[in-house]
Amino acid sequence: MNLSVDKIVTITSGKIVQSGESHGFSGMASLDEATAKDVSFLGNEKYFQAFMNTGAGIVLIPPGVPDRPESVTLIEVENPSIAFGEIVKFFVNTKKIFTPGVHPAAHVAVDVQLDPEAVCVKAGAIIESGAIIGNGTEIGPGAVIGERSRIGEDCMIYANCTVREECVLGDRVILQPGCVIGADGYGYELLDGMHVKIDQVGIVELCDDVEVGANTTIDRARFGKTKVGKGTKIDNLTQIAHNVQIGEHTLVVAQVGLAGSSKIGNYVTLAAQSGCVGHINIADKATLAARTVATKDIPTGGGVYMGMPARPMREEMKKMALISRLPALVAEVKRLSSKCD
Amino acid sequence: MNLSVDKIVTITSGKIVQSGESHGFSGMASLDEATAKDVSFLGNEKYFQAFMNTGAGIVLIPPGVPDRPESVTLIEVENPSIAFGEIVKFFVNTKKIFTPGVHPAAHVAVDVQLDPEAVCVKAGAIIESGAIIGNGTEIGPGAVIGERSRIGEDCMIYANCTVREECVLGDRVILQPGCVIGADGYGYELLDGMHVKIDQVGIVELCDDVEVGANTTIDRARFGKTKVGKGTKIDNLTQIAHNVQIGEHTLVVAQVGLAGSSKIGNYVTLAAQSGCVGHINIADKATLAARTVATKDIPTGGGVYMGMPARPMREEMKKMALISRLPALVAEVKRLSSKCD
Amino acid sequence: MNLSVDKIVTITSGKIVQSGESHGFSGMASLDEATAKDVSFLGNEKYFQAFMNTGAGIVLIPPGVPDRPESVTLIEVENPSIAFGEIVKFFVNTKKIFTPGVHPAAHVAVDVQLDPEAVCVKAGAIIESGAIIGNGTEIGPGAVIGERSRIGEDCMIYANCTVREECVLGDRVILQPGCVIGADGYGYELLDGMHVKIDQVGIVELCDDVEVGANTTIDRARFGKTKVGKGTKIDNLTQIAHNVQIGEHTLVVAQVGLAGSSKIGNYVTLAAQSGCVGHINIADKATLAARTVATKDIPTGGGVYMGMPARPMREEMKKMALISRLPALVAEVKRLSSKCD
Repeated sequence: MNLSVDKIVTITSGKIVQSGESHGFSGMASLDEATAKDVSFLGNEKYFQAFMNTGAGIVLIPPGVPDRPESVTLIEVENPSIAFGEIVKFFVNTKKIFTPGVHPAAHVAVDVQLDPEAVCVKAGAIIESGAIIGNGTEIGPGAVIGERSRIGEDCMIYANCTVREECVLGDRVILQPGCVIGADGYGYELLDGMHVKIDQVGIVELCDDVEVGANTTIDRARFGKTKVGKGTKIDNLTQIAHNVQIGEHTLVVAQVGLAGSSKIGNYVTLAAQSGCVGHINIADKATLAARTVATKDIPTGGGVYMGMPARPMREEMKKMALISRLPALVAEVKRLSSKCD
Repeated sequence: MNLSVDKIVTITSGKIVQSGESHGFSGMASLDEATAKDVSFLGNEKYFQAFMNTGAGIVLIPPGVPDRPESVTLIEVENPSIAFGEIVKFFVNTKKIFTPGVHPAAHVAVDVQLDPEAVCVKAGAIIESGAIIGNGTEIGPGAVIGERSRIGEDCMIYANCTVREECVLGDRVILQPGCVIGADGYGYELLDGMHVKIDQVGIVELCDDVEVGANTTIDRARFGKTKVGKGTKIDNLTQIAHNVQIGEHTLVVAQVGLAGSSKIGNYVTLAAQSGCVGHINIADKATLAARTVATKDIPTGGGVYMGMPARPMREEMKKMALISRLPALVAEVKRLSSKCD
Repeated sequence: MNLSVDKIVTITSGKIVQSGESHGFSGMASLDEATAKDVSFLGNEKYFQAFMNTGAGIVLIPPGVPDRPESVTLIEVENPSIAFGEIVKFFVNTKKIFTPGVHPAAHVAVDVQLDPEAVCVKAGAIIESGAIIGNGTEIGPGAVIGERSRIGEDCMIYANCTVREECVLGDRVILQPGCVIGADGYGYELLDGMHVKIDQVGIVELCDDVEVGANTTIDRARFGKTKVGKGTKIDNLTQIAHNVQIGEHTLVVAQVGLAGSSKIGNYVTLAAQSGCVGHINIADKATLAARTVATKDIPTGGGVYMGMPARPMREEMKKMALISRLPALVAEVKRLSSKCD
């Protein structure tokens, strides 16, 4: 797709204040990364030097910019950040065209419930017997939807995802490529020296507006369900064990690990590579800093926790400060020893 | 599938002591999560309150329960936990029906050795030239079995798994969705400022009864084999580098990382997010607590280790206790200083 | 493939000094793992005991070896390590035969630019509309190449990889199975209590000679590009967030996590499970030891850093030593207290 200067003027409600050499624009970039085919913007005066040296073909600028780089088309707008957001939206809308239909190179079992005029199934997608797919949903290439699973409306299931049998997704759920919903939970019983598999007969339920990152794994419950509440967003390569319950509007950043049957509240933030042991509660609005491991319940109050085991941030910071002052402490004790002995 | 009350009585060898409103049951859940379509059980008196408030349609109870929730069907059995296990088994057996046959939307190379009347190959599965698949094995949708690899009998290879060329799986091996067996090990040689790839010409061997979690990666050996011993169970998102040797009946929990050529014994437990550096030995029956990193050999004796570097748990706990008492130590030194100076 | 003794003599420019029982060899292994079908080598005298007990069918040995195991064919060569490398290369070259052609069970959209006589597309691969594939490239079974993405020449895209729309790969790029290039970056804006998705309209660019490990995820940029420089090698299960910039010839070992917009220099080494917070710079040639987390810029100088937060290794080692001497410090303070009070 190529955006003309006129189209950009229309989208941004701006006016041309300088005409450059480029006439068609197919991308967006920051001032220092942009090339002649890119739209960029001057959102803050601290980027003025980058603006003067930019390789962008066209730049959205605020009123009253004193100097101007040569041969760049400049569009004056009231608020460049907001205007640039309009350009981004335009690109997104033209790129993500939802075209209903089941591709002939997809495989949909005969008893799957989906309306081929309202659902998009890409080449190589597999939808197994008894599954139900809501209208407006796209099943990406190579994605596998297991038997009797139910996918809501307007979902986006990207390439090579796996949703195993009987799992349930609400509306507007997004699964990034490669994520696995509903693998067996990790449970064994030691019998005569062998770890015998405990059947995992529950499911995974992802509520409305949940997003799951690439190659993340969410295991099915032992029985009952592993549940992720409405609006919760999970980043890449995260492990969510069987029977975990995550509340609504919670953020789970990359590479987090949540052990079995843990309960995470609403509006919690679990920063990257943090985690918790099994069977504990993390209360609403709590934050675990990066790498933190909660080993006991995290109480209500919306506090920030750090370290392993997780402690209130202030306490943990103090501990770290004391550790870094150990050399001075050792020296002082040595001085006292020599003085007193 | 719908289970009738009579069928539940038969499976559990129980007797109806109260009749409720629901008549068909399609799921299992704990007392506090169950709905009218679910079977549940009262396994322990501490759940008595949950029992009284349960939404379950039918509950297995022990003899002599004083009070009973209304409108719930109650089945008295000798041991509710064991009886519930029978119900679970029944659900599992009816759900996981093995139907042999190669789906027309699968691709099996002409020289693959498999008996289409004894093997199940699902839609979208790819089996490449020279592979051998044992009887009773299911190759899931989108799974890829590479050239000349050998899969044993009664294996379950779930959706979108990859087994690269020449790898060998024993009998009853389970690969959860998305796991990758036999990717190249990470090895390079610096030549004239470039990292030149060292060919990885070995394989991966997974022995009988091994289970591998979703999106876990086990790399092929530089040469020879990366080996996982009989009965070892590996959880999700775990990284097992080239030439690692894992013994029998060992547990490797989620997000563990094992560096190249490490040797892990039998009946070892590697808790979540633990790991070890390359070329070390971890002796039989040792346990690494969560997040522990072994940087040297772990000796025989079946001890529990913590921390990074890994230390005997007792020592590490003491160290952590001393750190948390640092403020008191600092105060005492200050007091002594002011007294002595 | 079976290698004869004569062929091995030719490849290694060696001479037969003892003839054994085996005559055809199909694998390579270390002395203690080798079987009668394997070639092995005695590269170092410390393996002499393993040599005497080896089960290998044929062993490459240096001149002047005093004792010899019975019934093993022995080939004397000047440098056994180098000669063995020649055998490895021979196996690799005969195994990895590039056969151009689009498999009938692959799906290539009509407007994809690729030369079917110079590109190999395996069964089950999906190449979407507008993609461009360079000559000499192989697209593995189940791999998905998204719309308008560009793959260079002589690339190897293994099974079940996903490259999402518009991403760009240079020449000789290797993607191990299951890796995901170009998933959406993790970005949301809190509006009326809901996390609203911020469109991620940028791409991922992987330059020439980059290798990406199994199930690793590299997110597309918010806008502009997430970029991995020429010759950089990334191991398995690594998370690279949106807008990260990695330089050339850098090593990123398994399970590393790099937060958004971080900039990593050239010839940096990020050891296993290390990482950094967003928006920081790690200078050329720096090394982060395993598990290290950089929370601030790492300056030039090529130093080694450890811990969380990352500190120069020497400083961190000293801190760890002082912690392990805490019991002695506590005892000394107690002694002083009792003496002074």
